[in-house]
Amino acid sequence: MKNLIVASTSTVHGSGYLEYILPTLKTHFAGVSTLIFVPFARPGGISYDDYTSKAAEAFSKIGITVKGIHSFEDPKVAVAEAEGIFTGGGNTFELVNQLYQHDLIEVLQEALLGGTPYLGTSAGSNICGVTMMNTNDMPIVYPPSFNTLAMIPFNINAHYLDPDPGSTHMGETRETRIKEYHVFNSTAVLGLREGSWLRVQGDEISLEGELSARLFEQGKAPKELASGTLINL
Amino acid sequence: MKNLIVASTSTVHGSGYLEYILPTLKTHFAGVSTLIFVPFARPGGISYDDYTSKAAEAFSKIGITVKGIHSFEDPKVAVAEAEGIFTGGGNTFELVNQLYQHDLIEVLQEALLGGTPYLGTSAGSNICGVTMMNTNDMPIVYPPSFNTLAMIPFNINAHYLDPDPGSTHMGETRETRIKEYHVFNSTAVLGLREGSWLRVQGDEISLEGELSARLFEQGKAPKELASGTLINL
Repeated sequence: MKNLIVASTSTVHGSGYLEYILPTLKTHFAGVSTLIFVPFARPGGISYDDYTSKAAEAFSKIGITVKGIHSFEDPKVAVAEAEGIFTGGGNTFELVNQLYQHDLIEVLQEALLGGTPYLGTSAGSNICGVTMMNTNDMPIVYPPSFNTLAMIPFNINAHYLDPDPGSTHMGETRETRIKEYHVFNSTAVLGLREGSWLRVQGDEISLEGELSARLFEQGKAPKELASGTLINL
Repeated sequence: MKNLIVASTSTVHGSGYLEYILPTLKTHFAGVSTLIFVPFARPGGISYDDYTSKAAEAFSKIGITVKGIHSFEDPKVAVAEAEGIFTGGGNTFELVNQLYQHDLIEVLQEALLGGTPYLGTSAGSNICGVTMMNTNDMPIVYPPSFNTLAMIPFNINAHYLDPDPGSTHMGETRETRIKEYHVFNSTAVLGLREGSWLRVQGDEISLEGELSARLFEQGKAPKELASGTLINL
């Protein structure tokens, strides 16, 4: 049975890495002593080792050891045998590229469907959707496909930002970009604001955190979902 | 000899479509009576016909007729025989996807190298770079490649935005995204602010408009280039 936390961001303004969600993670990863960390998204180009150290420091506060997937001889075995998995944020294109290069898509799907507790933040949450087509990231590498883990029946737009009515900038708003997406695609998109996360337990998906989230469905007006909503799509 | 205008945006705040650059376009397209418009980027999912009408309305003010490339039986012939070409903004992924679907990359390169005057705005400027890897757009379709026309020896980041020091948003800044790009790629990137454009005459590339532009080169500190600078990379 799936057991996932799909978070918009690792960090909310004015607080440390994963700090806002650590009490939730303590419950989510109860019984887990060692977590496998997937550092492939490399925010700011940080090295796998440094990124893993950052994750390890946060998880040490709840008594969990973190090992980077890159430190295993066979990353597929590492995923299959993991007690728990965390995929951090950064660049979604590079993350997805590396998941394909290491042939990890199917083994991740099997582990997550089998109940291995999972945490994704930002790019690590985008990959829980059907495709990565609603990432905000720059296409700095060309992955072999935009298809991702499909652990939820819609896509995630992480760090969702409402239009700024005072802006003089002419670039597209997030909402406009998602509307353009629906000209070509039918999969729904959930705009998850920073500080929000999804709790996925089997087929039950609930919106957690203090804020509402914005749901975009093809051919419909966007909807605000209140915290606590069960999302059935 | 190349003869291109590569503009950050079609529209600056508080003014009409192409209005700020119309005097420049009058000189740039002097002697052109009919322009071929490439509407493939479809901002907001607008139809090819509606987008072409929008471009036609703007160019009618300087006595130029606009025909959409989609209205030709053979778009390759339309490009090869064009007096002038304009590629509008919208979604760069869909634009590049359609250029490949219609097999237009080479014929566009030949026309532009042969001296056909060209205007690109936003997505239509991104494609003048070596790759589209510095677009801000959402990857709403999967193009067969990120390689673009390479009419200039660097990439464009259109609608370049400086970091907002007052922001509480944790998503990456534009500068951070470009730094991440340079972890994996060596091609330089020019951040073109709204209202700026490049004038490309043969191998001479000059920065036009009132603002400076921000040049990002791998392994170097970013540089501000003043308006009027000749860019030699």
